[in-house]
Amino acid sequence: MGRTKVVVIGAGPAGLTVANLLHRAGIDCLVLERETREFIEQRARAGFIEEWAVRELERHGLADGLLRRAPTQGSFEFRVDGVRHQFDYAELTGHRHFVYPQQELVKDLLTGYPGPIQFSVEDIRLHDLATSPSVTYAGQRVDCDFVAGCDGARGICQSYVPATITRHDYGIGWLALLAEAPPSARSVVFGIHPLGFAGHMARTPSVTRYYLQCSPGDTADDWPDDRVWTQLRTRLAVPGEPIIDGPLIEKRVLPMHNYVLDRMSAGRLHLAGEAAHLVAPIAAKGMNLAIHDALLLTRGIAAWYDGDPSTLDGYSAACLGRVWQYQEFSLWLSDLFHGSRDPFTHQLIQARLRRLLNSRKAAESFAEIYIGQHADF
Amino acid sequence: MGRTKVVVIGAGPAGLTVANLLHRAGIDCLVLERETREFIEQRARAGFIEEWAVRELERHGLADGLLRRAPTQGSFEFRVDGVRHQFDYAELTGHRHFVYPQQELVKDLLTGYPGPIQFSVEDIRLHDLATSPSVTYAGQRVDCDFVAGCDGARGICQSYVPATITRHDYGIGWLALLAEAPPSARSVVFGIHPLGFAGHMARTPSVTRYYLQCSPGDTADDWPDDRVWTQLRTRLAVPGEPIIDGPLIEKRVLPMHNYVLDRMSAGRLHLAGEAAHLVAPIAAKGMNLAIHDALLLTRGIAAWYDGDPSTLDGYSAACLGRVWQYQEFSLWLSDLFHGSRDPFTHQLIQARLRRLLNSRKAAESFAEIYIGQHADF
Repeated sequence: MGRTKVVVIGAGPAGLTVANLLHRAGIDCLVLERETREFIEQRARAGFIEEWAVRELERHGLADGLLRRAPTQGSFEFRVDGVRHQFDYAELTGHRHFVYPQQELVKDLLTGYPGPIQFSVEDIRLHDLATSPSVTYAGQRVDCDFVAGCDGARGICQSYVPATITRHDYGIGWLALLAEAPPSARSVVFGIHPLGFAGHMARTPSVTRYYLQCSPGDTADDWPDDRVWTQLRTRLAVPGEPIIDGPLIEKRVLPMHNYVLDRMSAGRLHLAGEAAHLVAPIAAKGMNLAIHDALLLTRGIAAWYDGDPSTLDGYSAACLGRVWQYQEFSLWLSDLFHGSRDPFTHQLIQARLRRLLNSRKAAESFAEIYIGQHADF
Repeated sequence: MGRTKVVVIGAGPAGLTVANLLHRAGIDCLVLERETREFIEQRARAGFIEEWAVRELERHGLADGLLRRAPTQGSFEFRVDGVRHQFDYAELTGHRHFVYPQQELVKDLLTGYPGPIQFSVEDIRLHDLATSPSVTYAGQRVDCDFVAGCDGARGICQSYVPATITRHDYGIGWLALLAEAPPSARSVVFGIHPLGFAGHMARTPSVTRYYLQCSPGDTADDWPDDRVWTQLRTRLAVPGEPIIDGPLIEKRVLPMHNYVLDRMSAGRLHLAGEAAHLVAPIAAKGMNLAIHDALLLTRGIAAWYDGDPSTLDGYSAACLGRVWQYQEFSLWLSDLFHGSRDPFTHQLIQARLRRLLNSRKAAESFAEIYIGQHADF
C-alpha cells in the first residue's frame, strides 16, 4: 500500500500530459497503464496538433521533440471532381498545424517524465471516489487525493462517472490506412467524390495516412490492396500528381461515431480525453481535445492544492465548451465530405462548399475553428 | 390579338420589378395579374429588403418611396432563456436592412409603371414557348418574344417548365400574425425557447409582425388570441420590455417548406421569384431573391435584344447560385431557431449559438450572408 497525490490511469497523450504537468507543478503522481510500453510507443493514431496546443506544451517544456522534428502545415486541398482547391488557413489565421504522430508525442512525454509509471497493469479498480480515493490493481493499493481518468474510450474510468452519454453515429465508416510510401501531395488532401470521401495526410517522409469512406460494416478483408489503391486513385488523383503506392502497414475500419459525457467528474475522479468524449477523426480534433483537457485538469488540481477548489469545480464545463464546438465543426465538415443522398441536402452541401471557397468571411470563420483558438490556461 | 415584346405574368415584387426595368430599358411589355389591384396592394407578405437590392432598385429609379419611408435596421436580438443577445450586423458588414412591407413596394412599382397592366385576368395559358410564344387569356391572345413567369408558387407558369423540383419540408409550422400594435422592441427579435421559436418584426409604427412556431397541421382556430399573446410573452418577453398586444388582423399557419426548380427557363419562358423557388420566411430571403431574379432576367432580356443571347442562357444558373446559398443559410438558421429533440443535435445547436455570439469571425461570416452580398448586375 502506498500513497501519492494523483493516480493517472492511462499513458496516452492525455494521461502523459497530465503526469508531466503535475510533476512540473511539484505534485506527485503515479501513472498506471494497462498496455506495455512497447505497445503505446508504436500505436499509430492521431497526427495533427493545433498550434495553440504546441505553444502550451512548449511553455511547460514538453515540446522539444515536437518543435525539432514536426513539420508544420498551413494549408490543405479540397479535390472535387478532379479539380484542386487550395485552402490556406495559415494565411487566414496566422497559425499552422504540427504534423507529429501520436506515438512520437507519447515517446517524448514518456522520456521526459521522471516520475513513477507502471505498464501492463491489470485489474485496475477505483474506490471511495467521493472523498478519499484509492486505486487497487494486481493486489496492490494506492491512496491518493485525485484520480485522473485518461484511459480512453475502452478504459475503466468512464464507468465510474454517473454521466449521461450523448452519442451520434454517422452511419459511415472510414477505412484507415497507413502506407509505407512517401506522401502524394505536399499537404492534407480532402477528396470529395461521388464514390465517397478520401483523405491523404502526410505522417513522415516515408509513411502516409490515407482514409477511404466505406460502409461501417466493412472489414479489412473487404478492402484488398488493389481495391484500396484503385479507389484512392479514383477519388484523389489529379493530373500530374499521381498517388504513390506502397505496402499497407495498417488497414482498419473505423465506424464514424462520437460521444460526449455530460459530466467529466465524479468526486475526486476527473476524466480527460477519450474517456470523456470521442470525436470521429474527420476534423483531426481528438488529440487536441485530450491536450486541452490535460491542461485544464492540471491547472485545476494545482489550484486545489493552492487552496482554490473552484477551478476544478469548473473543469467539466470548461472542457465541454471546446468539445461541443469541435463536435459541431466535425459534423459540419462531415456533411461536406460525405455528401447526402437527399437531393435537397446535396444541393445545400454544394452551396456550402462554394461559399467556403468564394467568401473570405466564410473562409476565415472556418479556418478559425479548423486550426483552433488559443484559450487562457 | 396583339403583340408585345415581353408578357409578364404576375404583378408581385418579381413581376413588377421586371416590368419597370424592361420599361426603363425601352422594351415593351404587358403585365397580366389574376388578382385585383386592390388585393395585391393589400397583400401582406415579406417586409425585409437587403441593402444591395435597395441600391439596385435606386439605381433604376425604383426606390423613391422606399428610401423616403422605409426605416432601416442593422441589428437584431436573440432572446434565449430570457437573456438578450444583440447582434449588430451593420457594424459587422456596413450594411442594413430596409423595413418595407411588400405591398408598399408593390404599390410604388404599380404607380411608377406606365405600361399596360391588366388585373383579374382569368384562364392564362402559354403557347409555343420554344420559338414564338403567345399568351392567351379570357378569349384574347398576345404574341411576344418572351414570357416572364412571375406568378408565384401557385401560378400557372411553373408547370410549363420541365424542371426537377427539389423539396424540403421542415416538419414545423409558423403561425404568422399581424398585430395592430406598436413594435415591442426596437429591432427584430428571434426568440429561442424550449416551447418553440417566436419572432418579432416591426412593420410600421402601428403594425407588428409576430411569428410563433407551431405544428404544421395547426389552423388559426387552434390559436385563439389569448393563447397567442400568452405564448408570445412566454417565449419573447424579457424584464422591462413587455410585449404590447393589440387586435390580430392576420393569423395564418405557414407550413415551413422550400422548393427549388433545377431550371428556371424553358424556351422563351423564364421564371422569376417564387414561381421558381420558395424559401421559408425563416431568414426573410424571399423578396430579395425575387428582386435578384428580376434584375438578372431584365439584364438577360436586354442583352438578347442587343444581340447577346448568352446572358439569358446563363440566367437560370446565375439565379440558382444565390438561391441555394440562401436555402443553405435558412436551414442553418432554422436549426438554430427550432432546436432539435435529438440530444446530440441539441448540443451542437447550443454550440453553434455560443460560437456565433462569441467569435467575431463566425459573426462576420453569418452577417455577410444574413444581409446578403451585392452582386454585379
